[in-house]
Amino acid sequence: MVNRRPTIADVAERARVSKGAVSLVVNDRPGLTEQTRARILAAVDELGWQPSQRARALSYSRAFSLGFVVARDPALLRSDPFFPAFIAGVESVLAQQGQVLVLQVVGTAQDEVAGYRRLVRDSRVDGFLLSDLRRDDPRIPLLKELGQLAVTLNRPVQESGFPAVCLDDRPGIAASVEHLAQLGHTRIAHVAGPIDFMHAQARREAFLETLERLGIPPGPVVVADFTAAGGVAATRRLLADPEPPTAIVYANDVMAIAGISAAAELGVRVPHQLSVTGYDDTELAEFVHPALTTVRADPFRWGEIAARTLLDLVEGGRPADVQLEPARLVVRRSTAAPGSRPHT
Amino acid sequence: MVNRRPTIADVAERARVSKGAVSLVVNDRPGLTEQTRARILAAVDELGWQPSQRARALSYSRAFSLGFVVARDPALLRSDPFFPAFIAGVESVLAQQGQVLVLQVVGTAQDEVAGYRRLVRDSRVDGFLLSDLRRDDPRIPLLKELGQLAVTLNRPVQESGFPAVCLDDRPGIAASVEHLAQLGHTRIAHVAGPIDFMHAQARREAFLETLERLGIPPGPVVVADFTAAGGVAATRRLLADPEPPTAIVYANDVMAIAGISAAAELGVRVPHQLSVTGYDDTELAEFVHPALTTVRADPFRWGEIAARTLLDLVEGGRPADVQLEPARLVVRRSTAAPGSRPHT
Repeated sequence: MVNRRPTIADVAERARVSKGAVSLVVNDRPGLTEQTRARILAAVDELGWQPSQRARALSYSRAFSLGFVVARDPALLRSDPFFPAFIAGVESVLAQQGQVLVLQVVGTAQDEVAGYRRLVRDSRVDGFLLSDLRRDDPRIPLLKELGQLAVTLNRPVQESGFPAVCLDDRPGIAASVEHLAQLGHTRIAHVAGPIDFMHAQARREAFLETLERLGIPPGPVVVADFTAAGGVAATRRLLADPEPPTAIVYANDVMAIAGISAAAELGVRVPHQLSVTGYDDTELAEFVHPALTTVRADPFRWGEIAARTLLDLVEGGRPADVQLEPARLVVRRSTAAPGSRPHT
Repeated sequence: MVNRRPTIADVAERARVSKGAVSLVVNDRPGLTEQTRARILAAVDELGWQPSQRARALSYSRAFSLGFVVARDPALLRSDPFFPAFIAGVESVLAQQGQVLVLQVVGTAQDEVAGYRRLVRDSRVDGFLLSDLRRDDPRIPLLKELGQLAVTLNRPVQESGFPAVCLDDRPGIAASVEHLAQLGHTRIAHVAGPIDFMHAQARREAFLETLERLGIPPGPVVVADFTAAGGVAATRRLLADPEPPTAIVYANDVMAIAGISAAAELGVRVPHQLSVTGYDDTELAEFVHPALTTVRADPFRWGEIAARTLLDLVEGGRPADVQLEPARLVVRRSTAAPGSRPHT
């Protein structure tokens, strides 16, 4: 590795001081005369010296990095629209602040704990972003035990002491159910995500609560896994019923798109015989046939706000919880009145 | 932040040596008697002390981190199946080695250069993984100027001096064209990615070369942008031809899936009136209707091998280029003989 950059020793030599004195100036600490300080700053400028991140980190005991551990089977990560956009939002804030994101992708719960412990042991990060909260999430006590700072996406059930950046999934699902009810549907089913995830649970609850509020009998709920294969299996199960639903509210777009395909293979036409709604508004949602009615989330903005909140916390602030604007329904062509005639 | 961990000072005190002596042992350097070394190691064990990553990094002048800068519009990242799986593959290797991935997502070419410079200036990483190579890629001279180590995914046109981990896109596209020719197609079009990307260019070349080899007239090529919207526009343009193609080879799945939808809206049925092939084998490919014939890449494995190669390089090795097994065609239901009868 070539290294043409000046070192702290070069600066010290030029300013005729010790490296320790340069370090005091760089870290904005007292103890030097104004004259010495000015001489050092001049030498820094003349040499174009940039203190290395590692030196800064050691003197501050800060990593200037945030950690994000994603626990997902890599195969399932492939078509998850949340993470790339969320990470891009986080990055857009970190880049401005000279901070970086240290990312870990782990496949199992055991690897997840090991991942956090390793990042902490190696002093890699100043705090963590926690997504995909689960009931009795083991990460909350783990990070407390390790004395770490964190920001959670949504508020965990147990008291965490960490600030939360929240986006309520309920209004989007409620709007989907209301939209279907207005079209005249009364047999509405839900394909949920794994209810161990709090967001999957919130979507399911919003589904049932909205039906109840509208006086529509509670439709069947099939718990699936957010994958295309899971969406197909759940759809087949629902459509095998002697009195199948006329509409299905899916907990994400991937399951909804796969569900449309599964219905088509059974000869059930969407939206004429079955209305379908998704959640996420993935890139393909607009471009599948029929175009998917879904709920548009904004993970990029969520990432921005979460990163800002965590940086504030790391810098000693006491950030309040943030409530983001809820995701909203986007009506396209996969929903229609029950038994409606083809419009294409 | 709570910190209950023992420090190097605790170890030094217990072993009745200086902190410098502890550092020599930790960094496996000579200069101590066996007796002193044994006493220090015993103190390390008794206290359960773990040297901090930052201390290790400073003494080694190593970050124990690899850098990956992704230059993509965050909106386009959403449904790109490559990055999450590639990153998961990289992680699977780094996690075993106590290394981490520092990820940056940048939206513009200017931000990209700034991103690399910043990671280098702050000594954040020991080397870079370069994906999405472009013609006259500015990153190659930039990283050379900065004296950095890197591994490229595929070999750049200009001599880089960096090891390359290569996966040839041509055989998969050639297999797609051969499959369509065997079905009897003679009017075959291609929807390409931005040809500034070397992988997009390789796919287009393989398309044209295979047609030529098979004695089929070169079909039209529309250059699009790998997005669903781009796939729709390109498909409409191709199908508006008075003598439209009977088959389209798309450079990725997202454009192919959007293309099937665009064809359906024009009343062109896939595969009976139009055969369609993709590239990537995304999660949804199997679950769209009709299921997509496509080329199955393995970005997870690519990530693994690229990470191993870069770690080898960082540790002073001289890794050879690696040629991965080419992606292979997966035949599903979006391809059929031209003018074939519906089979559903």
